[in-house]
Amino acid sequence: MKTVLVTGAAGFIGRHTLTPLLDFGYKVITTGRSTLPVDSRVEHHCADLLDKNQIATLIERTRPEELLHLAWYLEPGKYLHSFLNDAWLAASRELLKQFGLHGGKRAVLAGTCFEYQFQDSLLDELESPLDGNSHYGECKNALRIEAEKLSNDFQFSLAWARIFYLYGPHEYENRLVASVINSLIKSKEAPCSEGTQIRDYLHVQDVADGLSHILQSNITGPVNVTDGVGHTIRQIVETIADLTGRPELVKFGAFQPRPGDPDLVVGAPGKILTTPWKPSFDLTSGLRATIEWWKQAHQGNSVPIKN
Amino acid sequence: MKTVLVTGAAGFIGRHTLTPLLDFGYKVITTGRSTLPVDSRVEHHCADLLDKNQIATLIERTRPEELLHLAWYLEPGKYLHSFLNDAWLAASRELLKQFGLHGGKRAVLAGTCFEYQFQDSLLDELESPLDGNSHYGECKNALRIEAEKLSNDFQFSLAWARIFYLYGPHEYENRLVASVINSLIKSKEAPCSEGTQIRDYLHVQDVADGLSHILQSNITGPVNVTDGVGHTIRQIVETIADLTGRPELVKFGAFQPRPGDPDLVVGAPGKILTTPWKPSFDLTSGLRATIEWWKQAHQGNSVPIKN
Repeated sequence: MKTVLVTGAAGFIGRHTLTPLLDFGYKVITTGRSTLPVDSRVEHHCADLLDKNQIATLIERTRPEELLHLAWYLEPGKYLHSFLNDAWLAASRELLKQFGLHGGKRAVLAGTCFEYQFQDSLLDELESPLDGNSHYGECKNALRIEAEKLSNDFQFSLAWARIFYLYGPHEYENRLVASVINSLIKSKEAPCSEGTQIRDYLHVQDVADGLSHILQSNITGPVNVTDGVGHTIRQIVETIADLTGRPELVKFGAFQPRPGDPDLVVGAPGKILTTPWKPSFDLTSGLRATIEWWKQAHQGNSVPIKN
Repeated sequence: MKTVLVTGAAGFIGRHTLTPLLDFGYKVITTGRSTLPVDSRVEHHCADLLDKNQIATLIERTRPEELLHLAWYLEPGKYLHSFLNDAWLAASRELLKQFGLHGGKRAVLAGTCFEYQFQDSLLDELESPLDGNSHYGECKNALRIEAEKLSNDFQFSLAWARIFYLYGPHEYENRLVASVINSLIKSKEAPCSEGTQIRDYLHVQDVADGLSHILQSNITGPVNVTDGVGHTIRQIVETIADLTGRPELVKFGAFQPRPGDPDLVVGAPGKILTTPWKPSFDLTSGLRATIEWWKQAHQGNSVPIKN
């Protein structure tokens, strides 16, 4: 049985990767600052990845053959311009170095669409220019370059999974989809921009499934985690309004888009098409399941994570 | 009136720099995450220095001629091995760049004795080898090199003030001097190592005064903030025991020194001797004042910061 170490396993995407990884037959080891595992089926090691010594100890103890590294600083409204990106860049470099030193064979790291120079066409994992349009994007770009060097030095296989936009259970409540859903199910107004921006939103479970398929595959280098289907923000918000039956609460044009917000962010699916992965949700079914999850969460019911 | 921006002004050293800077005739501007100033005599700007955008806004608004940059991650027991050092390295680089871009003329940055390769002789600011014996030391070394480059690029004057060991009011309670004082005045045992290690402890007010004198001076490059007087840890603890009248509570040899703890860390005073600075406390008077401060702090009295 192959062992995979998952970092950020308690995070928005991480917690959705555990079931598909277990289904693929992995022994799953998670790590994080919490002393409690996020799931009873995994082996959890409490460690602070921002501590250099704790990384070394963690890898010596667990010696994983594979690594799915998702942990990062992602606080909404702050992460794009924070120097905590530099802390996670340094921690990730050390994690990957220790992984290589201790015989690691296969690593998948979380990249981001923010590495690309945004433009008026689909973003291609091999062809599109990169520029790090934010400090977050700069640090992820820097990590990718260093990770490729480490994978050469230590001869492990590396895929760099660029994650685009997503929504679903356990999302931060102040992000777009969670915020509109929560406003409408609580009968509050949802002020929006005109919503002409086009984004390739996926349900978080589909993103997590995609990452698990990439880990299983022989894919190396950058790989977009996307099906290439874009939606306008207006279309997403209108679908939520229809599904909750509260279209009168949505106020399009209530504010301007953020300065510099690109018109189009949609990835071209490339190497991921060589895996069996395809999204299990379309926009309507994904939003319907997410609305249901939020309704149950507010009733205080425990909500099983969809596999 | 010259303007100086002080970062880390609410910190252990920072709060003791305000009075000497005001006495030198500076207009003092402080910054930090708190919305409240640490002292009513200064102009405070709330900013998170780990946010790239907030640094630019802060410097545009305040346009300080001089800078005393003390803010850093210094949580006891964690800071030596933390990747938050990388966050502060990146933030400090950006702060210094914006300072230079907006006409800054003179900067003093906090260095550390942890930049040196520890050895059996006094540490000389010009001659002693450097090696960054910890991740903290590595990042401070890296910042010094980048700061010197920025001072050349933007033609501002830069001094790199290496701070050694210190004690005094407002110290973290789990650090050596504060911990022994608090144990003894609360009639608790104070377990110690044999205490043969030699360190050049200064009272925090003397360190802060030294930094203020360095800012006022024309000193450039590395400068040790020290009077070159070393004390054994045993001598320091015995002085506390004498002053509190509780020598029976001290247990020397209760544990081993930490692995890798150097025998000798004492700086040679160099360029600082060209300023009028000299310490106002010797070990006994400094510890006596600190014990008095802790006693009053525990009585809930407001304690004026000694000038």
